[in-house]
Amino acid sequence: MPANPLRLAPETIIGIIGAGTCDEKTAALAEEVGGLVAKRGAAMVCGGLGGVMEAAARGAFKNGGRTIGILPGDDRRSANPYISLPMVTDMGHARNVVIARTAQGLVAIEGECGTLSEIAVALKIGKPVVALGKWKTIEGVVSAENAEEAVEKIFNLI
Amino acid sequence: MPANPLRLAPETIIGIIGAGTCDEKTAALAEEVGGLVAKRGAAMVCGGLGGVMEAAARGAFKNGGRTIGILPGDDRRSANPYISLPMVTDMGHARNVVIARTAQGLVAIEGECGTLSEIAVALKIGKPVVALGKWKTIEGVVSAENAEEAVEKIFNLI
Amino acid sequence: MPANPLRLAPETIIGIIGAGTCDEKTAALAEEVGGLVAKRGAAMVCGGLGGVMEAAARGAFKNGGRTIGILPGDDRRSANPYISLPMVTDMGHARNVVIARTAQGLVAIEGECGTLSEIAVALKIGKPVVALGKWKTIEGVVSAENAEEAVEKIFNLI
Amino acid sequence: MPANPLRLAPETIIGIIGAGTCDEKTAALAEEVGGLVAKRGAAMVCGGLGGVMEAAARGAFKNGGRTIGILPGDDRRSANPYISLPMVTDMGHARNVVIARTAQGLVAIEGECGTLSEIAVALKIGKPVVALGKWKTIEGVVSAENAEEAVEKIFNLI
Repeated sequence: MPANPLRLAPETIIGIIGAGTCDEKTAALAEEVGGLVAKRGAAMVCGGLGGVMEAAARGAFKNGGRTIGILPGDDRRSANPYISLPMVTDMGHARNVVIARTAQGLVAIEGECGTLSEIAVALKIGKPVVALGKWKTIEGVVSAENAEEAVEKIFNLI
Repeated sequence: MPANPLRLAPETIIGIIGAGTCDEKTAALAEEVGGLVAKRGAAMVCGGLGGVMEAAARGAFKNGGRTIGILPGDDRRSANPYISLPMVTDMGHARNVVIARTAQGLVAIEGECGTLSEIAVALKIGKPVVALGKWKTIEGVVSAENAEEAVEKIFNLI
Repeated sequence: MPANPLRLAPETIIGIIGAGTCDEKTAALAEEVGGLVAKRGAAMVCGGLGGVMEAAARGAFKNGGRTIGILPGDDRRSANPYISLPMVTDMGHARNVVIARTAQGLVAIEGECGTLSEIAVALKIGKPVVALGKWKTIEGVVSAENAEEAVEKIFNLI
Repeated sequence: MPANPLRLAPETIIGIIGAGTCDEKTAALAEEVGGLVAKRGAAMVCGGLGGVMEAAARGAFKNGGRTIGILPGDDRRSANPYISLPMVTDMGHARNVVIARTAQGLVAIEGECGTLSEIAVALKIGKPVVALGKWKTIEGVVSAENAEEAVEKIFNLI
């Protein structure tokens, strides 16, 4: 008998994407999104580094969620301290594609060109993307005004 | 306060590699290895498909372990039913490199050319590899006679 | 003695990016850009498939240029007929990153999300991007009004 | 009219693989293989770095051949001086898969674990591999005694 028969369905995985450095307000937003994703019982996947990625992982971690970091470099120790499962790719920005494909839906929180590349790949392969802050003018991106709305929307879209 | 402060250290991740189809004896061995890795509290990473990958994931799953499948294709549903966290790469055999890099050490159970490519990359980047069955003549591979010995050795080497 | 000592410097490589299907006007523009890149003695790199990629390769090919197609799939025969050097990645959209890194500068001609992901990665890693048609509002993209201006600008920027 | 209608068929591409450092005897062998590939009008693809890769590219270059280097890092200047077309992947050892897929057949000249990973992937995907020196005991690898025999065999096998 499996210890936990419910695990036979793979876990829901939500991507949270954004820049590797960010201001406090953006970090607070990312932490809130991460926390809400964890409270719904989903794992979160991100790029594993600092800024929005670290804040989102912290929020998920504090709420008992599983945190997956898909790292661009070759060392698991480059992950932020809230990543429980560091995936080591050594593939640079190509790891952004793995984030977009592994997530069933993505919440984008501000960000720069790296975030934009993840959004573009996600839209290309038909994954829903909810944006907080920037990116609302990109065709196909769903806009949200706050963390709760973003998480509500992404779970409805996957 | 974190729900589980121990999680601040990332989880130990052991790779279990082998062919996508295998005989019953090899599957039983893989399931035993997966189970022993889970009993030691480590997550297991594999290629996410059938054969040795499925048997090893089943063993880990039945013992409450986390099972990560790094998939070559573009669909999380291609994962075997014991994978709780499907990573979707759409990168074909290049995903073998991600397995070798994400695992802190690898147990190879028989296998063919795909397995050999993972062993070769793992050795190239300095990861310990313990082999059950084939591959014992490859310089750098540590040989084991049974599942217990293989798991004991790989945990000592990481 | 080398047959051609000038070859000791690696060839200049310009990326031409855009959608896999396009209208005739966009194809004519792409073909003109490809031809102008070839006339300046540079190789062109693209995604190797149809639409803008094929038209640009045709323009380069007709003018004696080398045409490199970095293919997403696993078969060199998926390249359009004007690709002289098919690079086979089997890495799906992750091959977009290889295009952005291999090109010393990129000309974007219209396009959709796939093109946007290439532009975003190129900007992220500091490569110049000149756009014909869409994308002119993205910060960091240099706008051009016609093929000649686009090629003039990209050669000045690399 | 195309400047060179023969170019409508993509060029034949032969992979030459081996270690990033090697002794003089191995370098001489690699240079001879590269030269013979070029004399038959084929392009050569390699990992773009030193050792066997550089010697093979030098041989091809001196004989007027096109030399493609699929680089693991993020800088085209890391290519050896005989690479005319540096492909920049920033994907580390995952670029070995691109070499195996881009080459229609491969000649392996001695080498270590990196070379072994390329041979294993090539065999897995059904590409012919001719070996000079090591690797002759791997099932599926075709053995050759000298450069001429290796090149003769690989052209017969593709």
